[in-house]
Amino acid sequence: MTVAIIGGTGPEGSGLALRWAQAGETIIIGSRDPQRASATAAEIQKQTSGRVSGAENKAACESAEIVVLTVPFEGHAEMLKHLKPAFRPGQIVVDTTVPLAASVGGRPTRTLGVWQGSVAQQTAELVPGGIAVVAAFHNISAELLKHEGPVDCDVIVCSDDKQATRRIRELARKIPGVRALDGGKLENARIVEQITALLIGFNIRHKGHSGLRITGLPPEAYDI
Amino acid sequence: MTVAIIGGTGPEGSGLALRWAQAGETIIIGSRDPQRASATAAEIQKQTSGRVSGAENKAACESAEIVVLTVPFEGHAEMLKHLKPAFRPGQIVVDTTVPLAASVGGRPTRTLGVWQGSVAQQTAELVPGGIAVVAAFHNISAELLKHEGPVDCDVIVCSDDKQATRRIRELARKIPGVRALDGGKLENARIVEQITALLIGFNIRHKGHSGLRITGLPPEAYDI
Repeated sequence: MTVAIIGGTGPEGSGLALRWAQAGETIIIGSRDPQRASATAAEIQKQTSGRVSGAENKAACESAEIVVLTVPFEGHAEMLKHLKPAFRPGQIVVDTTVPLAASVGGRPTRTLGVWQGSVAQQTAELVPGGIAVVAAFHNISAELLKHEGPVDCDVIVCSDDKQATRRIRELARKIPGVRALDGGKLENARIVEQITALLIGFNIRHKGHSGLRITGLPPEAYDI
Repeated sequence: MTVAIIGGTGPEGSGLALRWAQAGETIIIGSRDPQRASATAAEIQKQTSGRVSGAENKAACESAEIVVLTVPFEGHAEMLKHLKPAFRPGQIVVDTTVPLAASVGGRPTRTLGVWQGSVAQQTAELVPGGIAVVAAFHNISAELLKHEGPVDCDVIVCSDDKQATRRIRELARKIPGVRALDGGKLENARIVEQITALLIGFNIRHKGHSGLRITGLPPEAYDI
């Protein structure tokens, strides 16, 4: 299974790539600039035994079963148009994007209203048929992904495709410390995306790298 | 300090009343029906040494420094109109209300859009001047409040009045197990309110009583 990370030279994308490469996944770092992609891939390769390569975003998308979007909201819709010819039925697109108001010069502790309800639902409109869209990894700190040790955060996975939810939950829990929860339908991404703005507020007030854990659920909730 | 709990015969209100009475606070259970209020108060009194009494909602509101709203969203604005003559400057109104779509016959895993952004911001419009509005306790399970033992949940407290935030954080952490975080301005209540819909989804899928913990913050974040 190959995972392409679109915008994979950024902090969140390269952090996820590092953790998944350490877990033995085959990773393609995508970037607008193939040379930057290869440089980041080589950097991650040094820290892991997994197979990590770099490619232009569209080429990365073409070669992967799972395509993870880690681009800022301001470039998000444009990126999906760019990737459109590269998608093929059966792929899973994982959207990690948060519509931070910072995208239009506002605060990172506020979000923009997205007409469809969430960025992930916008993505579902923009990808061709036959692609499963999953929302996940919004609440996981890029800083913690880049450091050693387990990540003290649950990943809430939302999708209208149960099988895709299951596969991305499996991918999520390859990151040490992470528990992956079924967050229900894709429409719930609107809540999970916004939680990030709240976490950024905590980070600013307290100089932390916050995440969240859901409490009070039976252990089976974390089984896949 | 006296805490009035408006709609205090319901599960969330009586659960909070129980925990605060156990911590030694003076509680007035408010209800439309003073007899029901007194019956619930007597029930709680049996389980605690704190002073617990019952009154009609408006009378409860009049006699308290802190007024906690635990009414369903469908009766929320009407209740504030009813209480209006009873408010006086210097009081703190704590809004725990979540705008669940269940209020209009929809799902408890979805929320209604509130014009002001959140129920708490609507409350800020409806109370007289000189009243501090605080949003808190949305994410804490009524079931867990009613049972013995610590509650495994953080309370996120949002307000535009820093002093009111501090006082309600102090009140929150009188519930064993609870850590109380400054969630920033009242506008952030829109995120905290919606988290409840997500938690209800987890509860339905997994038969749990979910809550949340924020991770990755320094211990000072929980100091008051």
